[in-house]
Amino acid sequence: MTGRKSFGSDNHAGAHPEVIRAIADANTGDSHPYGDDEWTQRAAAELTAAFGACDSLLVLNGTAANVLGISLLLRPYEAVVCAESSHLNVDECGATERILGNKLLTVSTPDGKLTPDLVRSRLTGRGDVHRAQPRVVQIAQVTELGTCYSLDELRQLSDFCKAEGFYLHVDGARLANAAAYLGCELADLAAGVDVLSFGGTKNGAMAAEAVVVMRDEIVASGPFHRKQQMQLASKMRFTAAQFTALMEDKLWLRSAQHANLMAARLAAGIADIPGISIRYPVQSNAVFATLRPAHIADLQREWTFYVWDEGENVVRWMTAFDTTEDDVDAFLDAIRASVTK
Amino acid sequence: MTGRKSFGSDNHAGAHPEVIRAIADANTGDSHPYGDDEWTQRAAAELTAAFGACDSLLVLNGTAANVLGISLLLRPYEAVVCAESSHLNVDECGATERILGNKLLTVSTPDGKLTPDLVRSRLTGRGDVHRAQPRVVQIAQVTELGTCYSLDELRQLSDFCKAEGFYLHVDGARLANAAAYLGCELADLAAGVDVLSFGGTKNGAMAAEAVVVMRDEIVASGPFHRKQQMQLASKMRFTAAQFTALMEDKLWLRSAQHANLMAARLAAGIADIPGISIRYPVQSNAVFATLRPAHIADLQREWTFYVWDEGENVVRWMTAFDTTEDDVDAFLDAIRASVTK
Amino acid sequence: MTGRKSFGSDNHAGAHPEVIRAIADANTGDSHPYGDDEWTQRAAAELTAAFGACDSLLVLNGTAANVLGISLLLRPYEAVVCAESSHLNVDECGATERILGNKLLTVSTPDGKLTPDLVRSRLTGRGDVHRAQPRVVQIAQVTELGTCYSLDELRQLSDFCKAEGFYLHVDGARLANAAAYLGCELADLAAGVDVLSFGGTKNGAMAAEAVVVMRDEIVASGPFHRKQQMQLASKMRFTAAQFTALMEDKLWLRSAQHANLMAARLAAGIADIPGISIRYPVQSNAVFATLRPAHIADLQREWTFYVWDEGENVVRWMTAFDTTEDDVDAFLDAIRASVTK
Amino acid sequence: MTGRKSFGSDNHAGAHPEVIRAIADANTGDSHPYGDDEWTQRAAAELTAAFGACDSLLVLNGTAANVLGISLLLRPYEAVVCAESSHLNVDECGATERILGNKLLTVSTPDGKLTPDLVRSRLTGRGDVHRAQPRVVQIAQVTELGTCYSLDELRQLSDFCKAEGFYLHVDGARLANAAAYLGCELADLAAGVDVLSFGGTKNGAMAAEAVVVMRDEIVASGPFHRKQQMQLASKMRFTAAQFTALMEDKLWLRSAQHANLMAARLAAGIADIPGISIRYPVQSNAVFATLRPAHIADLQREWTFYVWDEGENVVRWMTAFDTTEDDVDAFLDAIRASVTK
Repeated sequence: MTGRKSFGSDNHAGAHPEVIRAIADANTGDSHPYGDDEWTQRAAAELTAAFGACDSLLVLNGTAANVLGISLLLRPYEAVVCAESSHLNVDECGATERILGNKLLTVSTPDGKLTPDLVRSRLTGRGDVHRAQPRVVQIAQVTELGTCYSLDELRQLSDFCKAEGFYLHVDGARLANAAAYLGCELADLAAGVDVLSFGGTKNGAMAAEAVVVMRDEIVASGPFHRKQQMQLASKMRFTAAQFTALMEDKLWLRSAQHANLMAARLAAGIADIPGISIRYPVQSNAVFATLRPAHIADLQREWTFYVWDEGENVVRWMTAFDTTEDDVDAFLDAIRASVTK
Repeated sequence: MTGRKSFGSDNHAGAHPEVIRAIADANTGDSHPYGDDEWTQRAAAELTAAFGACDSLLVLNGTAANVLGISLLLRPYEAVVCAESSHLNVDECGATERILGNKLLTVSTPDGKLTPDLVRSRLTGRGDVHRAQPRVVQIAQVTELGTCYSLDELRQLSDFCKAEGFYLHVDGARLANAAAYLGCELADLAAGVDVLSFGGTKNGAMAAEAVVVMRDEIVASGPFHRKQQMQLASKMRFTAAQFTALMEDKLWLRSAQHANLMAARLAAGIADIPGISIRYPVQSNAVFATLRPAHIADLQREWTFYVWDEGENVVRWMTAFDTTEDDVDAFLDAIRASVTK
Repeated sequence: MTGRKSFGSDNHAGAHPEVIRAIADANTGDSHPYGDDEWTQRAAAELTAAFGACDSLLVLNGTAANVLGISLLLRPYEAVVCAESSHLNVDECGATERILGNKLLTVSTPDGKLTPDLVRSRLTGRGDVHRAQPRVVQIAQVTELGTCYSLDELRQLSDFCKAEGFYLHVDGARLANAAAYLGCELADLAAGVDVLSFGGTKNGAMAAEAVVVMRDEIVASGPFHRKQQMQLASKMRFTAAQFTALMEDKLWLRSAQHANLMAARLAAGIADIPGISIRYPVQSNAVFATLRPAHIADLQREWTFYVWDEGENVVRWMTAFDTTEDDVDAFLDAIRASVTK
Repeated sequence: MTGRKSFGSDNHAGAHPEVIRAIADANTGDSHPYGDDEWTQRAAAELTAAFGACDSLLVLNGTAANVLGISLLLRPYEAVVCAESSHLNVDECGATERILGNKLLTVSTPDGKLTPDLVRSRLTGRGDVHRAQPRVVQIAQVTELGTCYSLDELRQLSDFCKAEGFYLHVDGARLANAAAYLGCELADLAAGVDVLSFGGTKNGAMAAEAVVVMRDEIVASGPFHRKQQMQLASKMRFTAAQFTALMEDKLWLRSAQHANLMAARLAAGIADIPGISIRYPVQSNAVFATLRPAHIADLQREWTFYVWDEGENVVRWMTAFDTTEDDVDAFLDAIRASVTK
């Protein structure tokens, strides 16, 4: 870290002060462990209400949220259709394959988003005993490329899944940012979906994610899967308190709106800088931009961010709940200076 | 919870105030994620120094610490010899079998402790391709029954393992209590051991355990196993800060000493109450006692604790870092009143 | 091999000449692969008729038959209750744990047979998220100790399983010998059972076992599990032809009756030899006997058989479809000579 | 089947008469099971000599040969780089993912063949704990598209793998056809390779494949992996006898040469038929051709073969050890008649 605000990832940020306070407040003597406590009950009540869900399961990180969620939906010989660029496929060290034994059927996408047509391209061999059988369609909302599915696109995918007998799973590590961008309720993002991850960590929590279950018949097996997948915290109240903090007065939404706003400010500022172009539509708290390697190297001397695609000179700049207008403006000044130097 | 101090488990307690403070103190703006931060480096340095270890890996709960630790030592067709009463066998929902695919070869023990002779009873079929091959001997220090291996017993097991070509793994969810009881260094408990779990959560942390690696050649694969086993926290500093708090001025030891002392006080108080007997030697922060079912039921109306063995009327009473002398004395009064009523 | 008939195992024998002939007869030019052929259809028709089954799946060995059968019944966090002495637990190199990830809950038995009471002893922790949940009760018919469940014992276990919400799985590697001993139909052995293995290999086949499925709702997933578990033969007709040979004029039954008869002859002959005692009731094609180590060593110089329990001086003597009366009588002479020398 | 010779697959053929004879000849009374017999010893001796190998393990089908072979080379967080069109990825129902837990990193290829450059495109993220680590490069020789790697191409891949610290695995379900096409020894195909599958079944065996191990340090674990992966036949002599028959007077080579010759005859015959084009170089016993949908449908009324790519109107025509010149010529007549009608 260089001392300047990181644009590297929303997980470079610390925890929201409200989250820290909620943790400290939960530290009041004894409590039943493993989720049999008032904080967990409150968090669960708020989550199921917000999503119109059947149940929710708190876990400790995003990879676990995805793997646990998918495990509720699949038999061993079934497969997940997902974007080639998905976190599930790229960034989880093969956890789905090892922990669950399921195959991923990856689809190349222009913008990180699946469509019914793209999924259809992966459906050869249904009913053929030699092929792992596609059963879950997994999308990320927000995608790895910072893009969002519109509610209409979601509905099309959901209808498609129902018609084909598939389950729809949503990796929502940044679902809050999608809700903020789309201006919709969490329940709107869950309509027609079978299981979602709802991320807390990237949105101001310390280490807390929720698996949101939208189908009754898989609720009973959830807690066993969670325990066996090593995601059951004994002092669960401290995980739950992070979510009660996020749900209180919609802190989750305010934080996501702010992060999105900062990304929009950054994108707007870039618009008039020559030599830089926005690579994907800015629909969340990420700005993907293309600029010359020399300028990338120059900027990285003072600022923290990732080169997303070395070959195509694409960088990713992310904002967080604690990115300020001044941070963005200072970064814009630096970009402008570097590019025009 | 009844309002009275729980004697149910050391995980009924909250977090030590020092731990909460360390978490809040770590919340200082940006930091590199996934352990590439100063808190993690400090925790790792302190852990490896204290154990004389090659490496340490922070994880999020005790089941994960055990499974990850064992995964560093086993090939798929190899097995773990462990006590029938072990946490690994009884309380982890089959995580070793599912996540690693390895078989457990369980041994019935009188007091939760393995000996070379007990292990030998499980070694038929070595070299026979039809049998899963014993490769790791796993012990818990403290055991599930509250007993400790003496340093001499440890050495005998370790020598036996070396002679037989086995690895020795220690489930140290309560290793601090063993060090406190035995009056030895952590390094003494790790001598001749290949991998240990070192528990934080039951000793005042919020959710933090360490996998301590004593062999050089398995260090490199550890981080990949941890990530794939879904135990890599993105905002790792908050996990690490819990361990820096525990290691600071040996808070881990002071807390364990206190908990042990409270258990000893409880055991001493029981000694002169008729109709109760201590079931296992009290060598940590647990007291196992036998008393009449009616008295158990009576006590449970006001106090929280578990019946360990329904058939034999054994209960488990655990103390924690925050159990006070008054808590113990009040509980003793209640026991006395119940038993003599 | 010493040139004398082996009493080591029924898999020391070759294949029945009828089986070899059926294989050769199936070698008539082209055929659709993977079971889409007339031999497989015929074998399936005969098996489902004989068992009153919903479906059957041919596989290549007994371990695979057990693992595949169990895989149709279990979710990852569920467990199998089985005898400690079972093939599943002892002789399959941990295949269930590795291939399926499921835990075995083993029960010590006096004679290899489970009872409702013995199973009940393993049911603590039902509904407790920390415990793998018992879901399948597995028995072997014939057991590893050569004993058979009576139809009444079977019915009691089956009723118990239904009442408790368990599935009942039967390892029938030697089911033919049980049918021969009990004088019942295969369908009688399958009544109240959910999935069975029906062994061919130990009863004169070359390498062929059947998984017999008694529940409609798991039929559809069977072929996918079989393929994924690497048990789908491309030239399946040659596996199927082994079963059509066994089913033709009940060759399976005649072979098993003969093997049982030879074991009975051996047991009867032993009865009047001093210094030898029968260890378990002789209810199939195995005789377990206790005799002095010196006599064991003496006999093994010329005859092939296994010492079953070194500590208790128990040997296992098995007969096969091709064991003759002369083989048995010659072996009895040798035993008599050795023991009385 | 229509009564006419199938061009559907080489596994539509029966077994070579020599193979059937060898099986019958092995049926001579008792024998030690599980490979401790003279046939297995002979097959192993011949295989290791032919390949210059350290060891060989007989298994029961091709999927198992691939999975077992790869299991000898990988740790759980490591991955296999393979062609998108590979049998491993497409036709094994996700067995690698489920049985081993390893991820496949697939590469799109023009002709089913990997090159160092194509593999390099899949190597981003090496050393990054979030990514499954590429460790095995898997190629098929012959590929799924009927093409062969030249010895020079093999050497380049092998050198690349060594330089990069990768293992090289060869799926040789049709390795015999490659040796026949390239006119080289089996040892030439194994030079620089770590583990190979050597297929028997598609080349006249009934159900027999060999895993050929070229590295000393993995030999010891092979038999345990095989047993645990449910591929250890008890009456192994009947599997081994198939290989002794294939190795005798190089029956494997003569059969493959014949099948290749029939494919070449078919390809040559097609050359002068208008409206058909050969899709991939004919380098084994497969001819991939493009022709109009109407002609495909017309031909399939009387002849058995697969449409390989519906979208591009590509069919696959395979020959076998028992395809005759008359079969080919009759098929060519039918094609000519259909296309010119």
